[in-house]
Amino acid sequence: MPRADGPHAADDALARVRALRSRPGRDATGQHYVEGLRQVLAALDADLGVDLLLYCETLAPTIAQRRVRLARRAGVPVVRVTPEQFRRLSIATRASGVGAIVRQHWSAMREADPAAGLCWIAVGASRSPGNLGTLLRTAEAASVAGVVVLEPDTDPFDAAVVRASMGGIFGLRLVRAGHDQLAAWAARHGCGVIGASPRAALRYTEAAVRQPVIVLFGEERGGLTERELRLCTQVVGIPMAGRADSLNLGVAAGIVLFDLLRRRSST
Amino acid sequence: MPRADGPHAADDALARVRALRSRPGRDATGQHYVEGLRQVLAALDADLGVDLLLYCETLAPTIAQRRVRLARRAGVPVVRVTPEQFRRLSIATRASGVGAIVRQHWSAMREADPAAGLCWIAVGASRSPGNLGTLLRTAEAASVAGVVVLEPDTDPFDAAVVRASMGGIFGLRLVRAGHDQLAAWAARHGCGVIGASPRAALRYTEAAVRQPVIVLFGEERGGLTERELRLCTQVVGIPMAGRADSLNLGVAAGIVLFDLLRRRSST
Repeated sequence: MPRADGPHAADDALARVRALRSRPGRDATGQHYVEGLRQVLAALDADLGVDLLLYCETLAPTIAQRRVRLARRAGVPVVRVTPEQFRRLSIATRASGVGAIVRQHWSAMREADPAAGLCWIAVGASRSPGNLGTLLRTAEAASVAGVVVLEPDTDPFDAAVVRASMGGIFGLRLVRAGHDQLAAWAARHGCGVIGASPRAALRYTEAAVRQPVIVLFGEERGGLTERELRLCTQVVGIPMAGRADSLNLGVAAGIVLFDLLRRRSST
Repeated sequence: MPRADGPHAADDALARVRALRSRPGRDATGQHYVEGLRQVLAALDADLGVDLLLYCETLAPTIAQRRVRLARRAGVPVVRVTPEQFRRLSIATRASGVGAIVRQHWSAMREADPAAGLCWIAVGASRSPGNLGTLLRTAEAASVAGVVVLEPDTDPFDAAVVRASMGGIFGLRLVRAGHDQLAAWAARHGCGVIGASPRAALRYTEAAVRQPVIVLFGEERGGLTERELRLCTQVVGIPMAGRADSLNLGVAAGIVLFDLLRRRSST
Protein backbone atom coordinates (compact mmCIF):
# COMPACT_ATOMS: atom_id res chain seq x y z
CA MET A 1 0.00 0.00 0.00
CA PRO A 2 1.63 3.30 -1.06
CA ARG A 3 1.88 6.07 1.49
CA ALA A 4 -0.69 8.73 0.71
CA ASP A 5 1.87 11.52 1.03
CA GLY A 6 4.70 9.79 -0.83
CA PRO A 7 6.09 11.23 -4.07
CA HIS A 8 4.09 8.82 -6.25
CA ALA A 9 0.93 9.00 -4.14
CA ALA A 10 -1.19 10.71 -6.80
CA ASP A 11 -0.15 8.35 -9.59
CA ASP A 12 -0.70 5.31 -7.40
CA ALA A 13 -4.11 6.53 -6.25
CA LEU A 14 -5.21 7.37 -9.78
CA ALA A 15 -4.19 3.91 -11.00
CA ARG A 16 -6.19 2.32 -8.19
CA VAL A 17 -9.26 4.40 -9.07
CA ARG A 18 -8.92 3.51 -12.75
CA ALA A 19 -8.82 -0.20 -11.85
CA LEU A 20 -12.09 0.21 -9.89
CA ARG A 21 -13.94 1.31 -13.03
CA SER A 22 -14.19 -2.29 -14.20
CA ARG A 23 -16.11 -5.06 -12.53
CA PRO A 24 -13.01 -7.33 -12.28
CA GLY A 25 -11.10 -4.48 -10.62
CA ARG A 26 -13.89 -3.99 -8.09
CA ASP A 27 -14.24 -7.72 -7.45
CA ALA A 28 -10.49 -8.18 -6.94
CA THR A 29 -10.17 -5.41 -4.35
CA GLY A 30 -13.63 -5.45 -2.75
CA GLN A 31 -13.61 -1.68 -3.13
CA HIS A 32 -15.40 0.88 -5.29
CA TYR A 33 -14.84 4.48 -6.29
CA VAL A 34 -17.32 7.15 -5.31
CA GLU A 35 -17.30 10.69 -6.61
CA GLY A 36 -19.36 13.76 -5.91
CA LEU A 37 -19.62 15.69 -2.65
CA ARG A 38 -22.99 14.29 -1.68
CA GLN A 39 -21.95 10.68 -2.19
CA VAL A 40 -18.54 11.06 -0.54
CA LEU A 41 -20.13 12.73 2.51
CA ALA A 42 -22.71 9.93 2.67
CA ALA A 43 -19.89 7.36 2.57
CA LEU A 44 -17.98 9.16 5.36
CA ASP A 45 -21.14 9.53 7.45
CA ALA A 46 -22.08 5.88 7.04
CA ASP A 47 -18.66 4.87 8.37
CA LEU A 48 -18.45 1.88 6.04
CA GLY A 49 -14.72 2.09 5.43
CA VAL A 50 -13.33 4.94 3.35
CA ASP A 51 -9.85 3.72 2.36
CA LEU A 52 -8.67 6.82 0.54
CA LEU A 53 -9.86 10.31 -0.30
CA LEU A 54 -9.01 11.98 -3.59
CA TYR A 55 -9.09 15.72 -3.31
CA CYS A 56 -8.65 18.59 -5.74
CA GLU A 57 -8.62 21.93 -3.95
CA THR A 58 -9.34 23.93 -7.10
CA LEU A 59 -12.50 22.01 -7.96
CA ALA A 60 -13.88 21.11 -4.55
CA PRO A 61 -16.42 23.36 -2.81
CA THR A 62 -15.42 24.95 0.50
CA ILE A 63 -17.70 22.64 2.48
CA ALA A 64 -15.62 19.68 1.29
CA GLN A 65 -12.37 21.09 2.75
CA ARG A 66 -13.47 20.78 6.34
CA ARG A 67 -14.72 17.22 5.93
CA VAL A 68 -11.54 16.18 4.15
CA ARG A 69 -9.46 17.68 6.98
CA LEU A 70 -11.55 15.88 9.60
CA ALA A 71 -11.24 12.60 7.72
CA ARG A 72 -7.46 12.99 7.48
CA ARG A 73 -7.26 13.56 11.23
CA ALA A 74 -9.31 10.41 11.71
CA GLY A 75 -6.65 8.51 9.78
CA VAL A 76 -8.02 8.40 6.21
CA PRO A 77 -5.23 8.85 3.64
CA VAL A 78 -5.88 11.95 1.51
CA VAL A 79 -4.28 12.33 -1.92
CA ARG A 80 -4.26 15.69 -3.67
CA VAL A 81 -4.70 15.71 -7.43
CA THR A 82 -4.79 18.38 -10.11
CA PRO A 83 -8.05 19.43 -11.83
CA GLU A 84 -6.86 17.66 -14.99
CA GLN A 85 -6.15 14.44 -13.11
CA PHE A 86 -9.53 14.58 -11.36
CA ARG A 87 -11.48 15.35 -14.54
CA ARG A 88 -9.88 12.49 -16.41
CA LEU A 89 -11.37 10.06 -13.86
CA SER A 90 -14.74 11.72 -13.54
CA ILE A 91 -17.99 10.37 -14.97
CA ALA A 92 -19.87 13.50 -13.89
CA THR A 93 -20.60 16.36 -16.27
CA ARG A 94 -19.15 18.74 -13.69
CA ALA A 95 -16.24 17.29 -11.75
CA SER A 96 -16.76 17.84 -8.03
CA GLY A 97 -13.16 17.61 -6.87
CA VAL A 98 -13.85 14.97 -4.20
CA GLY A 99 -13.69 11.23 -4.63
CA ALA A 100 -13.24 8.26 -2.35
CA ILE A 101 -12.14 4.66 -2.52
CA VAL A 102 -14.65 2.88 -0.31
CA ARG A 103 -14.98 -0.71 0.82
CA GLN A 104 -17.98 -2.57 -0.65
CA HIS A 105 -20.24 -3.19 2.33
CA TRP A 106 -21.62 -6.68 1.75
CA SER A 107 -23.40 -8.63 4.48
CA ALA A 108 -24.13 -12.36 4.60
CA MET A 109 -27.68 -13.56 3.95
CA ARG A 110 -27.76 -15.39 7.29
CA GLU A 111 -27.02 -12.13 9.13
CA ALA A 112 -29.91 -10.26 7.47
CA ASP A 113 -32.58 -9.29 10.01
CA PRO A 114 -35.95 -9.76 8.26
CA ALA A 115 -37.69 -7.47 10.75
CA ALA A 116 -35.38 -4.49 10.24
CA GLY A 117 -36.70 -1.32 8.63
CA LEU A 118 -39.80 -1.20 6.42
CA CYS A 119 -38.92 -4.43 4.61
CA TRP A 120 -36.16 -5.90 2.46
CA ILE A 121 -36.09 -5.74 -1.30
CA ALA A 122 -34.54 -8.09 -3.86
CA VAL A 123 -33.43 -7.27 -7.39
CA GLY A 124 -32.72 -9.50 -10.36
CA ALA A 125 -31.11 -8.34 -13.57
CA SER A 126 -31.14 -4.64 -14.40
CA ARG A 127 -30.90 -3.01 -17.82
CA SER A 128 -29.74 0.34 -16.60
CA PRO A 129 -27.37 1.42 -13.82
CA GLY A 130 -29.32 4.68 -13.54
CA ASN A 131 -32.58 2.84 -12.90
CA LEU A 132 -30.96 0.54 -10.34
CA GLY A 133 -29.41 3.56 -8.58
CA THR A 134 -32.75 5.37 -8.47
CA LEU A 135 -34.30 2.20 -7.04
CA LEU A 136 -31.69 2.17 -4.24
CA ARG A 137 -32.20 5.89 -3.56
CA THR A 138 -35.96 5.37 -3.34
CA ALA A 139 -35.69 2.24 -1.17
CA GLU A 140 -33.42 4.00 1.32
CA ALA A 141 -35.80 6.96 1.49
CA ALA A 142 -38.63 4.54 2.35
CA SER A 143 -36.48 3.02 5.17
CA VAL A 144 -35.95 -0.30 3.44
CA ALA A 145 -33.41 -2.32 5.48
CA GLY A 146 -31.41 -3.80 2.64
CA VAL A 147 -31.21 -5.27 -0.82
CA VAL A 148 -30.66 -8.85 -1.90
CA VAL A 149 -28.89 -8.96 -5.26
CA LEU A 150 -29.93 -12.18 -7.00
CA GLU A 151 -28.05 -11.95 -10.29
CA PRO A 152 -24.23 -12.21 -10.29
CA ASP A 153 -24.07 -9.77 -13.24
CA THR A 154 -25.83 -7.02 -11.31
CA ASP A 155 -23.25 -4.83 -9.58
CA PRO A 156 -24.63 -2.20 -7.20
CA PHE A 157 -21.09 -0.80 -6.84
CA ASP A 158 -20.90 0.23 -10.48
CA ALA A 159 -20.06 3.97 -10.29
CA ALA A 160 -23.20 4.92 -12.26
CA VAL A 161 -25.42 2.99 -9.83
CA VAL A 162 -23.78 4.55 -6.78
CA ARG A 163 -24.07 7.99 -8.33
CA ALA A 164 -27.78 7.64 -9.18
CA SER A 165 -28.43 6.34 -5.65
CA MET A 166 -27.46 9.83 -4.38
CA GLY A 167 -25.78 8.30 -1.35
CA GLY A 168 -28.74 6.00 -0.67
CA ILE A 169 -26.61 2.88 -1.18
CA PHE A 170 -24.68 3.72 2.00
CA GLY A 171 -27.86 3.52 4.07
CA LEU A 172 -28.75 0.02 2.86
CA ARG A 173 -27.43 -3.43 3.78
CA LEU A 174 -26.36 -5.34 0.69
CA VAL A 175 -26.51 -9.10 0.37
CA ARG A 176 -25.52 -11.26 -2.58
CA ALA A 177 -27.52 -14.49 -2.64
CA GLY A 178 -28.82 -17.07 -5.07
CA HIS A 179 -32.51 -17.82 -5.49
CA ASP A 180 -32.30 -20.96 -3.29
CA GLN A 181 -30.48 -19.10 -0.56
CA LEU A 182 -33.10 -16.36 -0.52
CA ALA A 183 -35.91 -18.95 -0.52
CA ALA A 184 -34.34 -20.74 2.45
CA TRP A 185 -33.86 -17.47 4.37
CA ALA A 186 -37.47 -16.39 3.70
CA ALA A 187 -38.81 -19.79 4.75
CA ARG A 188 -36.74 -19.85 7.94
CA HIS A 189 -38.06 -16.44 8.99
CA GLY A 190 -41.64 -16.85 7.77
CA CYS A 191 -40.96 -13.95 5.44
CA GLY A 192 -43.42 -13.26 2.61
CA VAL A 193 -42.01 -12.54 -0.85
CA ILE A 194 -44.01 -9.98 -2.84
CA GLY A 195 -43.11 -9.88 -6.51
CA ALA A 196 -43.78 -6.63 -8.38
CA SER A 197 -44.85 -7.26 -11.97
CA PRO A 198 -46.57 -5.03 -14.53
CA ARG A 199 -48.69 -8.01 -15.53
CA ALA A 200 -50.08 -8.96 -12.12
CA ALA A 201 -53.82 -8.85 -11.48
CA LEU A 202 -53.57 -8.18 -7.73
CA ARG A 203 -53.20 -4.46 -6.93
CA TYR A 204 -50.13 -3.35 -4.97
CA THR A 205 -52.48 -1.66 -2.49
CA GLU A 206 -53.77 -5.13 -1.60
CA ALA A 207 -50.37 -6.68 -0.96
CA ALA A 208 -49.72 -8.20 2.46
CA VAL A 209 -48.66 -5.44 4.80
CA ARG A 210 -47.52 -7.47 7.82
CA GLN A 211 -43.83 -7.96 8.47
CA PRO A 212 -41.53 -9.60 7.67
CA VAL A 213 -41.72 -9.14 3.95
CA ILE A 214 -39.34 -8.83 1.01
CA VAL A 215 -40.36 -7.08 -2.21
CA LEU A 216 -38.82 -8.47 -5.38
CA PHE A 217 -38.36 -6.26 -8.46
CA GLY A 218 -37.64 -7.86 -11.82
CA GLU A 219 -35.86 -6.58 -14.88
CA GLU A 220 -37.26 -3.33 -16.37
CA ARG A 221 -38.66 -4.74 -19.57
CA GLY A 222 -38.90 -8.49 -19.04
CA GLY A 223 -40.37 -8.35 -15.54
CA LEU A 224 -39.99 -11.26 -13.14
CA THR A 225 -38.31 -14.41 -14.46
CA GLU A 226 -39.75 -17.89 -13.91
CA ARG A 227 -37.24 -18.51 -11.11
CA GLU A 228 -38.15 -15.21 -9.48
CA LEU A 229 -41.89 -15.92 -9.74
CA ARG A 230 -41.36 -19.25 -7.98
CA LEU A 231 -39.94 -17.35 -4.99
CA CYS A 232 -43.06 -15.21 -4.61
CA THR A 233 -45.85 -15.74 -2.11
CA GLN A 234 -47.76 -12.88 -3.80
CA VAL A 235 -47.39 -11.05 -7.10
CA VAL A 236 -48.72 -7.51 -7.30
CA GLY A 237 -49.00 -4.92 -10.04
CA ILE A 238 -49.68 -1.23 -10.42
CA PRO A 239 -52.81 -0.80 -12.55
CA MET A 240 -52.06 1.55 -15.45
CA ALA A 241 -54.79 4.12 -15.92
CA GLY A 242 -53.43 5.63 -19.16
CA ARG A 243 -52.12 4.05 -22.36
CA ALA A 244 -48.72 3.27 -20.85
CA ASP A 245 -47.88 -0.38 -20.36
CA SER A 246 -45.23 0.11 -17.71
CA LEU A 247 -43.48 2.53 -15.40
CA ASN A 248 -39.84 3.31 -14.82
CA LEU A 249 -38.37 0.80 -12.30
CA GLY A 250 -37.57 3.47 -9.70
CA VAL A 251 -41.03 5.01 -10.06
CA ALA A 252 -42.74 1.62 -9.68
CA ALA A 253 -40.61 0.90 -6.60
CA GLY A 254 -41.50 4.29 -5.11
CA ILE A 255 -45.23 3.69 -5.56
CA VAL A 256 -45.12 0.18 -4.05
CA LEU A 257 -42.71 0.92 -1.17
CA PHE A 258 -44.25 4.23 -0.08
CA ASP A 259 -47.71 2.64 -0.13
CA LEU A 260 -46.36 -0.11 2.13
CA LEU A 261 -44.91 2.60 4.38
CA ARG A 262 -48.22 4.46 4.41
CA ARG A 263 -50.20 1.38 5.36
CA ARG A 264 -47.61 0.20 7.89
CA SER A 265 -47.70 3.62 9.55
CA SER A 266 -51.48 3.59 9.76
CA THR A 267 -51.80 0.14 11.39
CA MET B 1 -42.23 21.23 -49.06
CA PRO B 2 -40.03 18.67 -50.86
CA ARG B 3 -41.69 15.58 -52.27
CA ALA B 4 -40.88 12.59 -50.12
CA ASP B 5 -39.91 10.51 -53.14
CA GLY B 6 -37.94 13.17 -54.98
CA PRO B 7 -34.21 12.73 -55.65
CA HIS B 8 -33.20 14.99 -52.76
CA ALA B 9 -35.86 13.73 -50.39
CA ALA B 10 -33.41 12.09 -47.97
CA ASP B 11 -31.09 15.10 -47.80
CA ASP B 12 -34.00 17.47 -47.31
CA ALA B 13 -35.56 15.32 -44.60
CA LEU B 14 -32.24 14.90 -42.78
CA ALA B 15 -31.69 18.66 -42.81
CA ARG B 16 -35.15 19.21 -41.37
CA VAL B 17 -34.51 16.68 -38.60
CA ARG B 18 -31.16 18.28 -37.79
CA ALA B 19 -32.87 21.66 -37.45
CA LEU B 20 -35.34 20.18 -34.96
CA ARG B 21 -32.52 19.28 -32.58
CA SER B 22 -32.31 22.86 -31.38
CA ARG B 23 -34.95 24.78 -29.51
CA PRO B 24 -35.04 27.61 -32.11
CA GLY B 25 -35.53 25.02 -34.85
CA ARG B 26 -38.42 23.45 -32.98
CA ASP B 27 -39.99 26.82 -32.15
CA ALA B 28 -39.74 28.03 -35.76
CA THR B 29 -41.48 24.99 -37.24
CA GLY B 30 -43.76 23.96 -34.38
CA GLN B 31 -42.53 20.42 -34.95
CA HIS B 32 -40.28 17.96 -33.15
CA TYR B 33 -38.37 14.81 -34.07
CA VAL B 34 -39.23 11.52 -32.45
CA GLU B 35 -37.15 8.38 -32.75
CA GLY B 36 -37.56 4.84 -31.53
CA LEU B 37 -40.24 2.34 -32.49
CA ARG B 38 -42.25 2.75 -29.29
CA GLN B 39 -42.37 6.53 -29.53
CA VAL B 40 -43.09 6.63 -33.26
CA LEU B 41 -45.94 4.13 -32.86
CA ALA B 42 -47.33 6.18 -29.97
CA ALA B 43 -47.21 9.30 -32.15
CA LEU B 44 -49.01 7.51 -35.02
CA ASP B 45 -51.61 6.05 -32.63
CA ALA B 46 -52.28 9.40 -30.99
CA ASP B 47 -53.01 10.91 -34.41
CA LEU B 48 -51.45 14.25 -33.46
CA GLY B 49 -50.00 15.00 -36.86
CA VAL B 50 -47.06 12.97 -38.14
CA ASP B 51 -45.65 15.12 -40.95
CA LEU B 52 -42.93 12.76 -42.15
CA LEU B 53 -41.58 9.29 -41.41
CA LEU B 54 -37.89 8.50 -41.63
CA TYR B 55 -37.29 4.85 -42.29
CA CYS B 56 -34.22 2.66 -42.57
CA GLU B 57 -35.14 -0.85 -43.67
CA THR B 58 -31.83 -2.36 -42.51
CA LEU B 59 -32.16 -1.08 -38.93
CA ALA B 60 -35.91 -1.18 -38.37
CA PRO B 61 -37.57 -4.22 -36.82
CA THR B 62 -40.13 -6.13 -38.92
CA ILE B 63 -43.05 -4.80 -36.89
CA ALA B 64 -42.15 -1.28 -38.03
CA GLN B 65 -42.49 -2.14 -41.74
CA ARG B 66 -46.22 -2.75 -41.59
CA ARG B 67 -46.93 0.44 -39.68
CA VAL B 68 -44.78 2.48 -42.03
CA ARG B 69 -46.64 1.02 -45.01
CA LEU B 70 -50.02 1.78 -43.41
CA ALA B 71 -48.94 5.33 -42.63
CA ARG B 72 -47.78 5.88 -46.22
CA ARG B 73 -51.15 4.68 -47.49
CA ALA B 74 -52.80 7.14 -45.11
CA GLY B 75 -50.83 9.93 -46.78
CA VAL B 76 -47.80 10.36 -44.52
CA PRO B 77 -44.64 11.04 -46.57
CA VAL B 78 -42.03 8.32 -45.94
CA VAL B 79 -38.34 8.94 -46.62
CA ARG B 80 -35.89 6.05 -46.78
CA VAL B 81 -32.42 6.63 -45.37
CA THR B 82 -29.28 4.53 -45.04
CA PRO B 83 -28.13 3.10 -41.68
CA GLU B 84 -25.29 5.65 -41.65
CA GLN B 85 -27.67 8.55 -42.24
CA PHE B 86 -30.03 7.32 -39.55
CA ARG B 87 -27.29 6.72 -37.00
CA ARG B 88 -25.82 10.17 -37.51
CA LEU B 89 -29.14 11.68 -36.34
CA SER B 90 -29.79 9.25 -33.53
CA ILE B 91 -29.46 10.06 -29.84
CA ALA B 92 -30.17 6.43 -28.89
CA THR B 93 -27.41 3.97 -28.07
CA ARG B 94 -28.97 1.56 -30.55
CA ALA B 95 -30.52 3.24 -33.55
CA SER B 96 -34.02 1.93 -34.14
CA GLY B 97 -34.38 2.75 -37.82
CA VAL B 98 -37.68 4.63 -37.41
CA GLY B 99 -38.11 8.32 -36.78
CA ALA B 100 -40.86 10.85 -37.29
CA ILE B 101 -41.30 14.58 -37.66
CA VAL B 102 -44.37 15.31 -35.55
CA ARG B 103 -46.34 18.47 -34.88
CA GLN B 104 -46.06 19.82 -31.33
CA HIS B 105 -49.52 19.36 -29.86
CA TRP B 106 -50.08 22.48 -27.77
CA SER B 107 -53.52 23.46 -26.47
CA ALA B 108 -54.65 26.82 -25.13
CA MET B 109 -55.09 27.26 -21.38
CA ARG B 110 -58.70 28.39 -21.86
CA GLU B 111 -59.52 25.11 -23.63
CA ALA B 112 -58.17 22.97 -20.80
CA ASP B 113 -60.92 20.97 -19.11
CA PRO B 114 -60.12 20.95 -15.38
CA ALA B 115 -62.33 17.92 -14.77
CA ALA B 116 -60.65 15.68 -17.38
CA GLY B 117 -58.68 12.63 -16.26
CA LEU B 118 -57.25 12.21 -12.76
CA CYS B 119 -56.07 15.83 -12.54
CA TRP B 120 -53.78 18.26 -14.32
CA ILE B 121 -50.14 18.80 -13.43
CA ALA B 122 -47.93 21.86 -13.80
CA VAL B 123 -44.16 21.96 -14.07
CA GLY B 124 -41.70 24.79 -13.54
CA ALA B 125 -38.04 24.64 -14.43
CA SER B 126 -36.40 21.23 -14.84
CA ARG B 127 -32.74 20.36 -14.45
CA SER B 128 -32.84 17.20 -16.47
CA PRO B 129 -34.71 16.22 -19.65
CA GLY B 130 -34.64 12.60 -18.46
CA ASN B 131 -36.41 13.50 -15.21
CA LEU B 132 -39.01 15.59 -17.01
CA GLY B 133 -39.63 12.76 -19.48
CA THR B 134 -40.06 10.23 -16.67
CA LEU B 135 -42.49 12.65 -15.01
CA LEU B 136 -44.57 12.77 -18.23
CA ARG B 137 -44.47 8.98 -18.60
CA THR B 138 -45.62 8.57 -14.99
CA ALA B 139 -48.33 11.23 -15.27
CA GLU B 140 -49.80 9.63 -18.39
CA ALA B 141 -49.80 6.21 -16.72
CA ALA B 142 -51.79 7.72 -13.83
CA SER B 143 -54.35 9.16 -16.33
CA VAL B 144 -53.36 12.78 -15.79
CA ALA B 145 -55.20 14.92 -18.36
CA GLY B 146 -52.41 17.32 -19.24
CA VAL B 147 -49.42 19.38 -18.27
CA VAL B 148 -49.12 23.13 -17.86
CA VAL B 149 -45.57 24.25 -18.63
CA LEU B 150 -44.88 27.40 -16.59
CA GLU B 151 -41.31 28.21 -17.55
CA PRO B 152 -40.54 29.32 -21.13
CA ASP B 153 -37.14 27.57 -20.92
CA THR B 154 -38.71 24.20 -20.26
CA ASP B 155 -39.28 22.38 -23.56
CA PRO B 156 -41.23 19.12 -23.36
CA PHE B 157 -40.47 18.52 -27.05
CA ASP B 158 -36.73 18.24 -26.46
CA ALA B 159 -35.87 14.83 -27.95
CA ALA B 160 -34.46 13.57 -24.64
CA VAL B 161 -37.71 14.46 -22.82
CA VAL B 162 -39.86 12.80 -25.48
CA ARG B 163 -37.65 9.71 -25.41
CA ALA B 164 -37.76 9.35 -21.61
CA SER B 165 -41.54 9.79 -21.68
CA MET B 166 -41.73 6.46 -23.57
CA GLY B 167 -44.58 7.76 -25.68
CA GLY B 168 -46.41 9.16 -22.65
CA ILE B 169 -46.18 12.72 -23.98
CA PHE B 170 -48.58 11.79 -26.81
CA GLY B 171 -51.29 10.88 -24.31
CA LEU B 172 -51.15 14.24 -22.52
CA ARG B 173 -52.51 17.65 -23.39
CA LEU B 174 -49.82 20.30 -23.25
CA VAL B 175 -50.40 23.91 -22.35
CA ARG B 176 -47.91 26.74 -22.12
CA ALA B 177 -49.03 29.36 -19.64
CA GLY B 178 -47.61 31.97 -17.29
CA HIS B 179 -48.21 31.93 -13.55
CA ASP B 180 -50.97 34.56 -13.76
CA GLN B 181 -52.72 32.73 -16.55
CA LEU B 182 -52.71 29.49 -14.56
CA ALA B 183 -53.92 31.31 -11.44
CA ALA B 184 -56.82 32.86 -13.39
CA TRP B 185 -57.77 29.50 -14.93
CA ALA B 186 -57.67 27.76 -11.53
CA ALA B 187 -59.75 30.51 -9.92
CA ARG B 188 -62.33 30.48 -12.71
CA HIS B 189 -62.84 26.72 -12.36
CA GLY B 190 -62.54 26.51 -8.57
CA CYS B 191 -59.53 24.29 -9.12
CA GLY B 192 -57.22 23.58 -6.16
CA VAL B 193 -53.46 23.84 -6.72
CA ILE B 194 -51.42 21.29 -4.75
CA GLY B 195 -47.72 22.07 -4.66
CA ALA B 196 -45.35 19.15 -4.12
CA SER B 197 -42.33 20.14 -2.05
CA PRO B 198 -39.77 18.06 -0.14
CA ARG B 199 -39.97 20.61 2.67
CA ALA B 200 -43.74 20.59 3.26
CA ALA B 201 -45.13 19.50 6.61
CA LEU B 202 -48.47 18.23 5.26
CA ARG B 203 -48.29 14.63 4.05
CA TYR B 204 -49.21 13.92 0.42
CA THR B 205 -51.69 11.33 1.69
CA GLU B 206 -53.62 14.19 3.29
CA ALA B 207 -53.84 16.34 0.15
CA ALA B 208 -57.28 17.31 -1.08
CA VAL B 209 -58.64 14.51 -3.20
CA ARG B 210 -61.70 16.17 -4.70
CA GLN B 211 -61.64 17.36 -8.30
CA PRO B 212 -60.75 19.62 -9.96
CA VAL B 213 -57.15 19.80 -8.88
CA ILE B 214 -53.78 20.58 -10.41
CA VAL B 215 -50.55 19.25 -8.89
CA LEU B 216 -47.52 21.50 -9.28
CA PHE B 217 -43.99 20.05 -9.30
CA GLY B 218 -41.02 22.35 -8.78
CA GLU B 219 -37.43 22.09 -9.89
CA GLU B 220 -35.58 18.94 -8.76
CA ARG B 221 -33.19 20.55 -6.33
CA GLY B 222 -34.60 23.98 -5.57
CA GLY B 223 -38.21 22.85 -5.14
CA LEU B 224 -41.08 25.30 -5.62
CA THR B 225 -40.19 28.94 -6.29
CA GLU B 226 -41.84 31.83 -4.45
CA ARG B 227 -44.07 32.49 -7.45
CA GLU B 228 -45.05 28.84 -7.61
CA LEU B 229 -45.79 28.72 -3.88
CA ARG B 230 -48.12 31.69 -4.23
CA LEU B 231 -50.20 29.68 -6.72
CA CYS B 232 -50.75 26.83 -4.24
CA THR B 233 -53.85 26.24 -2.18
CA GLN B 234 -52.02 23.37 -0.41
CA VAL B 235 -48.38 22.30 -0.23
CA VAL B 236 -47.67 18.65 0.45
CA GLY B 237 -44.53 16.59 0.96
CA ILE B 238 -43.47 12.97 1.06
CA PRO B 239 -42.04 12.23 4.51
CA MET B 240 -38.59 10.68 4.13
CA ALA B 241 -38.15 7.67 6.38
CA GLY B 242 -34.43 7.13 5.68
CA ARG B 243 -31.47 9.52 5.57
CA ALA B 244 -32.33 10.76 2.08
CA ASP B 245 -33.45 14.37 1.82
CA SER B 246 -35.26 14.05 -1.48
CA LEU B 247 -36.50 11.71 -4.18
CA ASN B 248 -36.08 11.70 -7.92
CA LEU B 249 -38.72 13.98 -9.52
CA GLY B 250 -40.39 11.15 -11.46
CA VAL B 251 -40.45 8.94 -8.36
CA ALA B 252 -41.98 11.71 -6.23
CA ALA B 253 -44.60 12.35 -8.92
CA GLY B 254 -45.40 8.63 -9.08
CA ILE B 255 -45.95 8.43 -5.32
CA VAL B 256 -48.17 11.54 -5.19
CA LEU B 257 -50.20 10.87 -8.37
CA PHE B 258 -50.80 7.16 -7.80
CA ASP B 259 -51.88 7.89 -4.23
CA LEU B 260 -54.36 10.43 -5.60
CA LEU B 261 -55.54 7.77 -8.08
CA ARG B 262 -55.89 5.21 -5.26
CA ARG B 263 -57.94 7.56 -3.10
CA ARG B 264 -60.04 8.83 -5.99
CA SER B 265 -60.83 5.23 -6.97
CA SER B 266 -61.88 4.34 -3.43
CA THR B 267 -64.28 7.26 -2.92
